[in-house]
Amino acid sequence: MPMMTAEQFEESLRALNLEVYMFGERVANVVDDPIIRPSMNAVAKTYELAHIPEYADLMTARSHLTGKRINRFTHIHQSIDDLVKKSKMGRMLGRETGCCFQRCVGMDALNALSIITYNIDRKYDTAYNRRFKKYLGFVQENDLTCDGAMTDPKGDRSLPPHQQPDPDHYLHVVEEKDDGIVVRGAKAHQTGAVNSHEVIVMPTIAMQAADKNYAVSFALPSDARGIVYIMGRQSCDTRKMEGGDLDQGNVRYGGHEALVVFDDVFVPWERVFMYGEHDFAGPLVEMFAAYHRQSYACKVGVGDVLIGAAQLAAENNGVANASHIKDKLIEMNHLNETLYCGCIACATEGQKKLSGTYAVNTLLANVHKQNVTRFPYEIARLAQDIAGGLMVTLPAEKDLKAGATRKWVEKYFQARPGIRTEDRMRILRLIENLTLGTAAVGYLTESMHGAGSPQAQRIMIGRKVNMAQKKEAAKRLCGIVDETS
Amino acid sequence: MPMMTAEQFEESLRALNLEVYMFGERVANVVDDPIIRPSMNAVAKTYELAHIPEYADLMTARSHLTGKRINRFTHIHQSIDDLVKKSKMGRMLGRETGCCFQRCVGMDALNALSIITYNIDRKYDTAYNRRFKKYLGFVQENDLTCDGAMTDPKGDRSLPPHQQPDPDHYLHVVEEKDDGIVVRGAKAHQTGAVNSHEVIVMPTIAMQAADKNYAVSFALPSDARGIVYIMGRQSCDTRKMEGGDLDQGNVRYGGHEALVVFDDVFVPWERVFMYGEHDFAGPLVEMFAAYHRQSYACKVGVGDVLIGAAQLAAENNGVANASHIKDKLIEMNHLNETLYCGCIACATEGQKKLSGTYAVNTLLANVHKQNVTRFPYEIARLAQDIAGGLMVTLPAEKDLKAGATRKWVEKYFQARPGIRTEDRMRILRLIENLTLGTAAVGYLTESMHGAGSPQAQRIMIGRKVNMAQKKEAAKRLCGIVDETS
Amino acid sequence: MPMMTAEQFEESLRALNLEVYMFGERVANVVDDPIIRPSMNAVAKTYELAHIPEYADLMTARSHLTGKRINRFTHIHQSIDDLVKKSKMGRMLGRETGCCFQRCVGMDALNALSIITYNIDRKYDTAYNRRFKKYLGFVQENDLTCDGAMTDPKGDRSLPPHQQPDPDHYLHVVEEKDDGIVVRGAKAHQTGAVNSHEVIVMPTIAMQAADKNYAVSFALPSDARGIVYIMGRQSCDTRKMEGGDLDQGNVRYGGHEALVVFDDVFVPWERVFMYGEHDFAGPLVEMFAAYHRQSYACKVGVGDVLIGAAQLAAENNGVANASHIKDKLIEMNHLNETLYCGCIACATEGQKKLSGTYAVNTLLANVHKQNVTRFPYEIARLAQDIAGGLMVTLPAEKDLKAGATRKWVEKYFQARPGIRTEDRMRILRLIENLTLGTAAVGYLTESMHGAGSPQAQRIMIGRKVNMAQKKEAAKRLCGIVDETS
Amino acid sequence: MPMMTAEQFEESLRALNLEVYMFGERVANVVDDPIIRPSMNAVAKTYELAHIPEYADLMTARSHLTGKRINRFTHIHQSIDDLVKKSKMGRMLGRETGCCFQRCVGMDALNALSIITYNIDRKYDTAYNRRFKKYLGFVQENDLTCDGAMTDPKGDRSLPPHQQPDPDHYLHVVEEKDDGIVVRGAKAHQTGAVNSHEVIVMPTIAMQAADKNYAVSFALPSDARGIVYIMGRQSCDTRKMEGGDLDQGNVRYGGHEALVVFDDVFVPWERVFMYGEHDFAGPLVEMFAAYHRQSYACKVGVGDVLIGAAQLAAENNGVANASHIKDKLIEMNHLNETLYCGCIACATEGQKKLSGTYAVNTLLANVHKQNVTRFPYEIARLAQDIAGGLMVTLPAEKDLKAGATRKWVEKYFQARPGIRTEDRMRILRLIENLTLGTAAVGYLTESMHGAGSPQAQRIMIGRKVNMAQKKEAAKRLCGIVDETS
Repeated sequence: MPMMTAEQFEESLRALNLEVYMFGERVANVVDDPIIRPSMNAVAKTYELAHIPEYADLMTARSHLTGKRINRFTHIHQSIDDLVKKSKMGRMLGRETGCCFQRCVGMDALNALSIITYNIDRKYDTAYNRRFKKYLGFVQENDLTCDGAMTDPKGDRSLPPHQQPDPDHYLHVVEEKDDGIVVRGAKAHQTGAVNSHEVIVMPTIAMQAADKNYAVSFALPSDARGIVYIMGRQSCDTRKMEGGDLDQGNVRYGGHEALVVFDDVFVPWERVFMYGEHDFAGPLVEMFAAYHRQSYACKVGVGDVLIGAAQLAAENNGVANASHIKDKLIEMNHLNETLYCGCIACATEGQKKLSGTYAVNTLLANVHKQNVTRFPYEIARLAQDIAGGLMVTLPAEKDLKAGATRKWVEKYFQARPGIRTEDRMRILRLIENLTLGTAAVGYLTESMHGAGSPQAQRIMIGRKVNMAQKKEAAKRLCGIVDETS
Repeated sequence: MPMMTAEQFEESLRALNLEVYMFGERVANVVDDPIIRPSMNAVAKTYELAHIPEYADLMTARSHLTGKRINRFTHIHQSIDDLVKKSKMGRMLGRETGCCFQRCVGMDALNALSIITYNIDRKYDTAYNRRFKKYLGFVQENDLTCDGAMTDPKGDRSLPPHQQPDPDHYLHVVEEKDDGIVVRGAKAHQTGAVNSHEVIVMPTIAMQAADKNYAVSFALPSDARGIVYIMGRQSCDTRKMEGGDLDQGNVRYGGHEALVVFDDVFVPWERVFMYGEHDFAGPLVEMFAAYHRQSYACKVGVGDVLIGAAQLAAENNGVANASHIKDKLIEMNHLNETLYCGCIACATEGQKKLSGTYAVNTLLANVHKQNVTRFPYEIARLAQDIAGGLMVTLPAEKDLKAGATRKWVEKYFQARPGIRTEDRMRILRLIENLTLGTAAVGYLTESMHGAGSPQAQRIMIGRKVNMAQKKEAAKRLCGIVDETS
Repeated sequence: MPMMTAEQFEESLRALNLEVYMFGERVANVVDDPIIRPSMNAVAKTYELAHIPEYADLMTARSHLTGKRINRFTHIHQSIDDLVKKSKMGRMLGRETGCCFQRCVGMDALNALSIITYNIDRKYDTAYNRRFKKYLGFVQENDLTCDGAMTDPKGDRSLPPHQQPDPDHYLHVVEEKDDGIVVRGAKAHQTGAVNSHEVIVMPTIAMQAADKNYAVSFALPSDARGIVYIMGRQSCDTRKMEGGDLDQGNVRYGGHEALVVFDDVFVPWERVFMYGEHDFAGPLVEMFAAYHRQSYACKVGVGDVLIGAAQLAAENNGVANASHIKDKLIEMNHLNETLYCGCIACATEGQKKLSGTYAVNTLLANVHKQNVTRFPYEIARLAQDIAGGLMVTLPAEKDLKAGATRKWVEKYFQARPGIRTEDRMRILRLIENLTLGTAAVGYLTESMHGAGSPQAQRIMIGRKVNMAQKKEAAKRLCGIVDETS
Repeated sequence: MPMMTAEQFEESLRALNLEVYMFGERVANVVDDPIIRPSMNAVAKTYELAHIPEYADLMTARSHLTGKRINRFTHIHQSIDDLVKKSKMGRMLGRETGCCFQRCVGMDALNALSIITYNIDRKYDTAYNRRFKKYLGFVQENDLTCDGAMTDPKGDRSLPPHQQPDPDHYLHVVEEKDDGIVVRGAKAHQTGAVNSHEVIVMPTIAMQAADKNYAVSFALPSDARGIVYIMGRQSCDTRKMEGGDLDQGNVRYGGHEALVVFDDVFVPWERVFMYGEHDFAGPLVEMFAAYHRQSYACKVGVGDVLIGAAQLAAENNGVANASHIKDKLIEMNHLNETLYCGCIACATEGQKKLSGTYAVNTLLANVHKQNVTRFPYEIARLAQDIAGGLMVTLPAEKDLKAGATRKWVEKYFQARPGIRTEDRMRILRLIENLTLGTAAVGYLTESMHGAGSPQAQRIMIGRKVNMAQKKEAAKRLCGIVDETS
């Protein structure tokens, strides 16, 4: 079974025994829970499209381990072309789902580990890369969705892991056994956690020797004993429980985040990919971060949806030809395509690593992500400008469909002749969804903080530019002859 | 009873018999409905503070009709100082409530009508101003909250009122009787509509002679026969129905908007302030708009709350001293105070009109509002940057308080020692409320479209600047001697 | 002679014996030097307009010392109205001259000293304020232009004054005599220095006890023995020497800056306003800075000129009705009027100090100046957008007027019928002057650094906002009940 | 002679007999004129580096006509890799020269003509492409610099070419002869015109049948009889005539623009590449524009210089470690690398045309250029922020070197120990050069208007995005089922 269908994916999730909590209670049926299900639908899309010929080039790749055709989300990038297709796949899926489809983080974790395990072995003569490759083969063969779990709760941010008042504020090894290790801690903001078959844990920051026990990376089945999921809530989450679909904005897809608690969980040695090599915690974080910053290609696709919605809102209002409306749509497109340039350029300027894996250009991946922390907010602002205030003052779907108010809503929210009031409302609810509702969590706040907050990118940009070359050029051009400054 | 207390205000609302619909059903008890009540609390604050000595200078004024001390929201501005205090009152109340307190729109309608009724009378020898003053006395004496209803649904935006496929898409007179007129139509986006004793209707655009029947302004009790309210829904509105208060963000205050339908409503002559004088529709819109653009002073106060919350979030995370955090807070303050400069300057540069009422400087009021369509979005973006991703991935209040998850939530969301997890969560929920939730409707989208969308202000700015003077200066300075260009 | 005419001002400058250097040589005739003279013309404008009735309200005031009508530039602000008129005078003169008219800095120094000398006396029982008032009377009576000299060269910016490798990098007292003190050092960036009758020296930063000798303020005639002026050069400065006037852009007015060296200059005691009271160095800097940040009101007037020029350039090109052109002009106006709001609001929110002088609101003055470091750059960018590339590729005035090329230039730079090619060129040269040339020094770079660089304002903004009040509001609204955070 | 050296290039220019005017007079020796020479040096750099092995990969290519190694500036792009290397060559040369090196425009004209002549032939069975290829071989064989001349003066912009009051405001054919055509008109803003061996003329806008005579493209030797050059002047141009080099900022390189007049110039048929095929005027403009918008890759290299200079200025001031300085430099880099992403992505997303030539992605090339109209201005603003006001108040080089003022300048402009005052001044003058001086013409104003003004790019962006796809995605996601909107 090298590539699952969407249906097989759904069934595979039903087979899991996850311990998931939401609103203070255990979720009995995770797959069918109305709040969670849209996020499952979004992941399922990554399976569905892999079987459709026109998407095959983007959605699939040939495994360098087995030569079989696999879902690109389980692939290790073997060329610049692979990196480029990853960006294009991200944009396409963002446009198809209008939300976070959650599967990048596992792909990025796999690729980062393919490089770093190789490098650890080179230095310490360990065997992590062999273990990792075996695990990778398992993931590819079964077409699994993996949660890439990096962000620890971090407690007192002024202290390193080993000095935290609560030692569990960074995930760490609490016991070493013959057959493996026992870990404790938690990972926050885990996108798509309960739609995943596997969870791949990585450290969250560069570490010193004293943090040795925190320098740990491993993979586990998502329903391993001791793993607990507490769902985060999103703006407007409960609209999905109201019945109807109009007020949800996006009628089928969504995302989710969860706190994943590791309550003394056992990890067998063959699933451990780093343990104690604290000097590789930083490189793993940086490598994963670079890949994952590229992954924000998806926001370009979500931007496509928001631009399309804004265009339709303008048409529905009968103002699509007003010059200021056209200009705002051009600006939205301009910003969105500027983002696209970033995720393409960091791919085409990538390079082959010793392990054979292709990595993105770190500087440009950070530049790309930095723009992602800005432009979606401006695109959203312009979308709200175009949509008009009705987007936030619309009555509920039930008012449109109930007896007493139906006639008024139908009558007074009719705008351009020929456009159904309901369709006009649907577009406005989609814009609300993307700029204030459940999808705004992904399009805005996650764009800000996912794959590292803006300041993290700024630090990397400062570190990666070739300032010496720039200074040299300046000195030469203004006639400074020696090397004094 | 020149000034009601908050309690008297609440009781006065209970005495109304409003026909309000929400989620497709009639609301039996408007005042106590959990979704509506926070908006009532916000209006009540305007009554409460008027009785507290330290707020008296801002919250009250002396009536130019009776000399009695009245709530400033019922006052006609008699001086520049009145205009300035209006701006300061707006900021203060925005800070006190963290939301839209809904009462400005009526104040702005009263002031605009005080000028325009006077001007109509001067031209047409009508008696609107006398009627208006009588009505004003009634409002002041009873300390009423008035909804200022301007925005029609507008239907096909490419056509004037009288050419609309549905003639009711602009409110108009459908029958003239001996004792008054009968009107039909609707007003959209009515902030605070169901917390109002009165509704003051004004036309929404400049009109031609053919639109005569649409050039109508009048006041009615909010529960007049034939007025129907259909509540708009806001992002995260139903969180107010969940029990608990943490997830609401703002535990006490909120806003609301409604569609107000006028289903053949009778208006007695003494409540009619314009009827058919189409050439004054434009001036009334402009005058009201200028006052109401000034009223966005309130967003400076809401900005204060968001800045305070961001500062606390940074402190709770233990990062308040990071230079980039401090710089972002300075930027938020800088933008917020730039807004403040706008609402102050349009007041101090105001002028006395023929009627005796002081009007704001139209150019600067539009400049102020234009900035309001931009800076709150950037302030919100920076607040999300500082808050961190946890703002959108936090579990529910019930997870914090329920047995199974309580220990994990308490443990893993503990950050800076000494800060309670619950308090940390409360601040993050407040930021969510202001940037994505119910208050974002007011702080962001209403900042965009309330009192006219950005393009409306741009048109006014283009019209009000003295371009001739600027061209003259340029020509003189570069040595162009004649008047050819 | 309470108010000089422009002619008297020019003659008074001729009477000075200044030691001025430019391009490595002593300037024999400062007043008539072609590079310096336009800056003299700009200062003379402040004298000229004071005699024209329509400008009298802005340009003059009644001395609180003598009751005589004086030029406002020598006035100590006695009311909020005085502060507002200062801002309006600044805008008006910026529009009249299109450049820096150089006289604010002395006015700001006088007003700051009127407050700080009073405060020093209160603490130390000194007599500075009496001395200062006598000096002020002399300035008012003779209608003098004063250079306010604050910025020291600062040498190694990581060290305080007394630890500098070169002790003269901050101006200091090198000798104390019976009848006065001897000072050494320099002041950089002195706007209008060689058009001034007097130079008023102030310290440039807050100081510690060890910097006592650097905490010195005094006034001297500009041609006091030992004062040396070295002119700074500006972009395109030598165009003023070419003959013709077209290529200068601004045919009559300009600005200048100079390094002022104090080569062991004697200051009699009655001209010393601070000496050793190091704890008042900071307050004097802050007070002067607040006043001087308000003074950037002038850039609004220069902005008026640039907007007028851009409008004319668009008209000359025949594109003034293109919607994107109109929108850009609206944006320029919007930004310019936002600046105006700042300089008005910091005045109206000012307050009376113990000395009786009215001071601007420090927070808002800093907010205003911070915007001045941004918006003129964007206005200039938009002006260049509207002007078209011809602004930087135009041939020289001589090409327009010389035989061989005249016909081609006349023919091919003709645009909208009826507009003379020469006039079109004049407008473009004015835009060049304001965005790249001599006036860009004032409109852009001086807007950035004059009255303190942007970071200086940010520090003040961070210090002056009431963060405690904002935090309190946030805590109250989200339901945090105690005082733990 | 497939590739000239810099020296050979200079000599080849001396062999030309150009009719050049400047300041109203004929330039006798163009190559050695102090104002023009720096621009010659910049072009010569494109010859010099082609001979240096480490630059060979970027600077040279293999001719698809002859298989010989040629300068990339004469190459027709044969692959995506060629397009990418063009962008990288641009950035590198921008960094090497700190200015416009003028040779892109000819390369872009050649590539655009290689496609459009092919397409014209396909439609009209003409033989332009054969002629063009012969001409191309000549250019490659002789390693010529070509001026690509597109921008007509345009006269009354509201009228098409054939309706202009002066028919010569667009270049057109005035006579048809047996052996060729005679053309009249002018091309404005011609970068590097007098450093070119050839001038390649193209129409400047899309045209209708009535404009047939204006739809003409051809190539001529730059010294063909009847071609007249009138030099444009740049900010600070005459500093190059002062002797010394410090005040120039960039001591060796610069740019220039000229008006090129075609005073009834004869063009033989074999040099005519379009004549009357008005329907191809628009496609030629668009193709050339897309290539030339990519060429603004060079500004990334100029940005490198400015960033390096700002870093040095900060170090010289001793403030390079201040957090706000570091942050501003990161922002400059971020913006500069965002530009880089644009010029890379429009290359990698390019495609092969029917003629075999690879064209850039038009949408992304326009997006790139649009950013170029914005970011350099912000980078320049930040550079001025970091540099400090001294950048515009520095005395002249002669003051540093002359007897009387030397000691003061040396002393008082000394900052961080170990940095020579002269070197500090040189860096500041370089920043002045790039933000206000001769190089600002290229880095700012040319970034705005070169290769089309911002609005031209916006129109193309609006035209090239796939809005239908975006609308479809939005409709599908919000549940609109039919095709009504």
